[in-house]
Amino acid sequence: MYKTIGILTGGGDAPGLNAVIRAVVKTATGFGMRVIGIEDGFEGLLGETRTRPLSQSDVRGLLPRGGTILGTRNRGRFVEHTVEGLATTSKEVYDEALDNLSRLNLDALVVLGGEGTLTIAAEFDQLGVPVVGVPKTIDNDLACTELTFGFVTALDIATEALDRLHTTAESHDRVMILEVMGRNAGWIALHSGIAGGADVILIPELPFSMESVAHKVRARDEGGSNFSIIVAAEGAVEAGHDQIFQVSGDKEHAPRLGGIAQYCTTQLQTQTGKETRCVVLGHLQRGGRPNAFDRMLATTYGAHSVRVLAEGKRGTMVALQAGDVITVPISEAVANVKTVPPDGQMVRTARDTGISFGAIDEGRYHAST
Amino acid sequence: MYKTIGILTGGGDAPGLNAVIRAVVKTATGFGMRVIGIEDGFEGLLGETRTRPLSQSDVRGLLPRGGTILGTRNRGRFVEHTVEGLATTSKEVYDEALDNLSRLNLDALVVLGGEGTLTIAAEFDQLGVPVVGVPKTIDNDLACTELTFGFVTALDIATEALDRLHTTAESHDRVMILEVMGRNAGWIALHSGIAGGADVILIPELPFSMESVAHKVRARDEGGSNFSIIVAAEGAVEAGHDQIFQVSGDKEHAPRLGGIAQYCTTQLQTQTGKETRCVVLGHLQRGGRPNAFDRMLATTYGAHSVRVLAEGKRGTMVALQAGDVITVPISEAVANVKTVPPDGQMVRTARDTGISFGAIDEGRYHAST
Amino acid sequence: MYKTIGILTGGGDAPGLNAVIRAVVKTATGFGMRVIGIEDGFEGLLGETRTRPLSQSDVRGLLPRGGTILGTRNRGRFVEHTVEGLATTSKEVYDEALDNLSRLNLDALVVLGGEGTLTIAAEFDQLGVPVVGVPKTIDNDLACTELTFGFVTALDIATEALDRLHTTAESHDRVMILEVMGRNAGWIALHSGIAGGADVILIPELPFSMESVAHKVRARDEGGSNFSIIVAAEGAVEAGHDQIFQVSGDKEHAPRLGGIAQYCTTQLQTQTGKETRCVVLGHLQRGGRPNAFDRMLATTYGAHSVRVLAEGKRGTMVALQAGDVITVPISEAVANVKTVPPDGQMVRTARDTGISFGAIDEGRYHAST
Amino acid sequence: MYKTIGILTGGGDAPGLNAVIRAVVKTATGFGMRVIGIEDGFEGLLGETRTRPLSQSDVRGLLPRGGTILGTRNRGRFVEHTVEGLATTSKEVYDEALDNLSRLNLDALVVLGGEGTLTIAAEFDQLGVPVVGVPKTIDNDLACTELTFGFVTALDIATEALDRLHTTAESHDRVMILEVMGRNAGWIALHSGIAGGADVILIPELPFSMESVAHKVRARDEGGSNFSIIVAAEGAVEAGHDQIFQVSGDKEHAPRLGGIAQYCTTQLQTQTGKETRCVVLGHLQRGGRPNAFDRMLATTYGAHSVRVLAEGKRGTMVALQAGDVITVPISEAVANVKTVPPDGQMVRTARDTGISFGAIDEGRYHAST
Repeated sequence: MYKTIGILTGGGDAPGLNAVIRAVVKTATGFGMRVIGIEDGFEGLLGETRTRPLSQSDVRGLLPRGGTILGTRNRGRFVEHTVEGLATTSKEVYDEALDNLSRLNLDALVVLGGEGTLTIAAEFDQLGVPVVGVPKTIDNDLACTELTFGFVTALDIATEALDRLHTTAESHDRVMILEVMGRNAGWIALHSGIAGGADVILIPELPFSMESVAHKVRARDEGGSNFSIIVAAEGAVEAGHDQIFQVSGDKEHAPRLGGIAQYCTTQLQTQTGKETRCVVLGHLQRGGRPNAFDRMLATTYGAHSVRVLAEGKRGTMVALQAGDVITVPISEAVANVKTVPPDGQMVRTARDTGISFGAIDEGRYHAST
Repeated sequence: MYKTIGILTGGGDAPGLNAVIRAVVKTATGFGMRVIGIEDGFEGLLGETRTRPLSQSDVRGLLPRGGTILGTRNRGRFVEHTVEGLATTSKEVYDEALDNLSRLNLDALVVLGGEGTLTIAAEFDQLGVPVVGVPKTIDNDLACTELTFGFVTALDIATEALDRLHTTAESHDRVMILEVMGRNAGWIALHSGIAGGADVILIPELPFSMESVAHKVRARDEGGSNFSIIVAAEGAVEAGHDQIFQVSGDKEHAPRLGGIAQYCTTQLQTQTGKETRCVVLGHLQRGGRPNAFDRMLATTYGAHSVRVLAEGKRGTMVALQAGDVITVPISEAVANVKTVPPDGQMVRTARDTGISFGAIDEGRYHAST
Repeated sequence: MYKTIGILTGGGDAPGLNAVIRAVVKTATGFGMRVIGIEDGFEGLLGETRTRPLSQSDVRGLLPRGGTILGTRNRGRFVEHTVEGLATTSKEVYDEALDNLSRLNLDALVVLGGEGTLTIAAEFDQLGVPVVGVPKTIDNDLACTELTFGFVTALDIATEALDRLHTTAESHDRVMILEVMGRNAGWIALHSGIAGGADVILIPELPFSMESVAHKVRARDEGGSNFSIIVAAEGAVEAGHDQIFQVSGDKEHAPRLGGIAQYCTTQLQTQTGKETRCVVLGHLQRGGRPNAFDRMLATTYGAHSVRVLAEGKRGTMVALQAGDVITVPISEAVANVKTVPPDGQMVRTARDTGISFGAIDEGRYHAST
Repeated sequence: MYKTIGILTGGGDAPGLNAVIRAVVKTATGFGMRVIGIEDGFEGLLGETRTRPLSQSDVRGLLPRGGTILGTRNRGRFVEHTVEGLATTSKEVYDEALDNLSRLNLDALVVLGGEGTLTIAAEFDQLGVPVVGVPKTIDNDLACTELTFGFVTALDIATEALDRLHTTAESHDRVMILEVMGRNAGWIALHSGIAGGADVILIPELPFSMESVAHKVRARDEGGSNFSIIVAAEGAVEAGHDQIFQVSGDKEHAPRLGGIAQYCTTQLQTQTGKETRCVVLGHLQRGGRPNAFDRMLATTYGAHSVRVLAEGKRGTMVALQAGDVITVPISEAVANVKTVPPDGQMVRTARDTGISFGAIDEGRYHAST
């Protein structure tokens, strides 16, 4: 069994990171392992390494706290390797990190992150460092797991925002548009749209027609509902167009200008003549306290990841399947993005309850509005 | 396909009932079916029947509303049959209801309820009325489904209560005990205890020793944590005792007197000498707005139950398994209560993160406190 | 005493409008008055008037509901009069409304609104229609009253947003900027900034220097706090500049482009080299359920406004002063905007607890950072 | 100006204590004063004194945290003096504390507490230790100040509980009773009852008749509202009876048995024949995160108390009057309990909106139900 394990968090913050860290430290302590926190993601393993031992007293009170006490980074020297495959440069980076891991006497790593961070984690495992991954992305687009922690909290926030916009929309007879995260996958938009009673949901998986969206808005007006609520994933795309909207993500330095919500606001106001307003939820989706479900899921993930290491497994990611936390190969988890199946149950549920996806042929799905 | 379907809600209210009703009405309307709401559970089918047609405008705004617009009953003439098996009396009751169903031209029923209500529903299906059940219990103790709607919202409420008690416990160096629902199954106590950072969780499935609980409290004091948080399911039992505590449920008329929390408060204060206080969460767990997850789950259940009827299936209950809503035979779902497996992953996660269940041999599970 | 009173809501929606309507209807009914709801603000009195009687059953369940069941309008034919003083046109508009009021047998009006709406209300009172005003603006910038309803709920929302941004800022070592409402007065920014632990607050009343803001951010970095939280009122202005930023308000049709938060984000990122991100809270501030305080205040305002009419008073606005709801002349209330006193207690409290307003001479106020 | 000031918290915990501590430390640091935290109320000044210096880094993150990092005590050696007037014993206690204060070089004290704690504080001031008091009681029953911090948060919690009970009451046609704090004053019950849409409010200031309460419940049934919501202050009294109900307070060691809610539940069920259930909110009212308003008020109180000491004032309590934080003599503040005026505006508002206080002559106040 490993004597000392390192733990790090990478990518954008998500509610529940601290709950995982707490569970890892508590469980590892019970198993007689030491835990070393690595700061600022994998970057903390480079140059003058930034690490600190984590004992039970260090993780007291962390369960409800948002963010990560270890800090996190979105971009770093490792990512370039993954993206551009410059082996020469990157090999040096990995070598430097491996030397430092060895010097720090770290026998294994628990890595909390999404697709990008876990790809690096898989590489370290290949290079001989036992790794267990913990799936983190509020977008819930990681393969092999039904849920990533942070997603259900993000749903609460997005749904509460839709509740708020509802009362304004009704009072002012307006169209209100909420833009939520989801560059490649529309899970937040889809789930919060169903939970928040949206009239239209726009997701990357189902290219939309502006005319179809406007049609839905007009149909509601004619039916006596003089307002409409639209929730749009930031990565939603208009059919037949190749606009690239800015997304709120972490890759770009510039603040938001001209995202999908703003585009739709202008277009719909023109096409329907109705007052239209938008809100970009942005970072409000990812900060703050995890809800009960995410604290529970994060704790189970954290405890299980230590048990997995204690059993000598490696190269795996903890995952939720059919109510149990199990393990899957990291490599499988990062191989594909989990997107919304256009013919799946959730999309069908949305349509059955009167929600439009703005598809060109949307009409044929709806017996009623 | 059925032309007219009835819908009713039975048993204690739970967050999400109205969201299911809304989804059923919207989906059924799309399929060209009429929906008739039956008031006050199955009782609405007796005597002067109490029913009303439900159109899309009747369910507007229902998604976030707690409770049930149809009303519900815990006890009724049907239940006596189930409990005491007095066939003579009961047969008349069912005959009366069957006559009324026929007179009302109801072709099928959507029944929202827990074990008691769904047992009656299964009986109606046997008697020739096509039925689909929707699993509802905030206790989450129904078999064949990973989750019942209302449970995740109840977790939020119980966990927030634990958060509140934490700050008081710390400030006053006290033991604080929270009693939550769970007569036969400890799911709420277990999940909220993990999510809320409890030190001790008492559930029906793991009889507790008061000495073991007191030991945990004293061990925390010695370790410098001068307070402890205990969450107890109302149905928790002391090993070797046969006390019967009052539960907050709906079977008894009397208000709460002397439940498990109160008993533990007196005992622990005596055994540990520490100030001990308790709160009985009671009805606060079941009222109010469903959270985003439960609205989404309730909507999916509601839409699917209509699709099931449209496909001509009957005698089934919609259920969540591995991220999909499927159907299972009602009879299987009501045959057993789903209890917490004492050796399961959740109990192990709790113990790995330092939580005691007050078991006689608790010590052997904990390397650390 | 008046037999029939009309009630209308004008301007942007605010949490508590429905609670006022409910209290007015309940109280008036007790006094033997009938209440007629006028839809879409004063516009409902023009053309084919849009009114409906409001009985106790119409206001059931309204207390916690956001928005206004009467609908509201920001612009209308009356406003042009106020803004441009075109007496000819306007006189006709008022005459039309007066005729309709007479035809509808409305003896008096309860008008819920901010400065714009109440200015029209005062005009009607001058023209012979007894009016009582109820102060509504989430900006809290109405004179003669300590609080307008909706403001304290807006504070909750803005403060929760700051809490969320805090965890992200800390985890990523970032500057996070939150833009809140407040075109002419910085009350929301000031109060939520104190409540949410902001490091910098930008308000219209205290023109800021970007260099001073950057200085604060750098000073925090040097002190070991590698992140900063800034809350900016949409109407904040840079000293010595005459930029006009877009505000989220209701006057313009276009969606947001280039507001204060976005400007500061670009500037600060350049000046400090730190990752900087912003969120524009926008309509999330004004929709949704009022909190307990606002429901109580709204109910007290509503009940008092009816008592005032019952006593034969007119031309007054209900107002909160020293814990009591009293009346003040509407004309006084609308004569001035209540802005933040730059030398007042709240600004001093902010500075004493380490908050900078980015003033040119900010340094002299701060013994500590 | 004082060089070193001590700070302590006494009595039951309330949301906002930590926010006051944070503001005191930040402000005092700016003024060049040192702050010493005294643990467990005045008890920390006896025997082996328990104190620790508080710097800016010690108060980081405290703003949203419930409870008090200094710990608090309800009973102690000082209180006995106040209660029983045993001068001999007490003089020694005060002398011991004075010696310790001198030894610790504490020049002045900031004392956060309610009537009990501030009475001791006033005594210390008399004995030569400059003191400034900060009013803390969730009951809001301190004289000379419009609001104590923690009260508005308690209102949120009680009102949310009423919202939850509403949906259950409606769904089950029940009477639901919520017991809230308020031994001598009914502020929480009154405000939350108005904000939460209660039908009956029971407070100590207006002795109730059970028959009058039952009458209200029956009148609602007859009017078609088959449920009723009652909120009762724990100190409410039945007219003509001298029962003494247990209160949830801190004076007694025993857990709750037979409080006012339970008594009313049994009585009403008998008198009306309706299913009746109760919930005792208890400690849930006082723990957890302060809301935005309380954080702002607590911060203003904290900063002002240091400014007051810096100006050389003593023997005063900071207080909110007409929107400003001012100072009043502590002795005045503790001389009387601030109770609800039976003929005041709030009671009248409640009655005007259809709420009964269960008074014997209640009928004459209500034109409508």
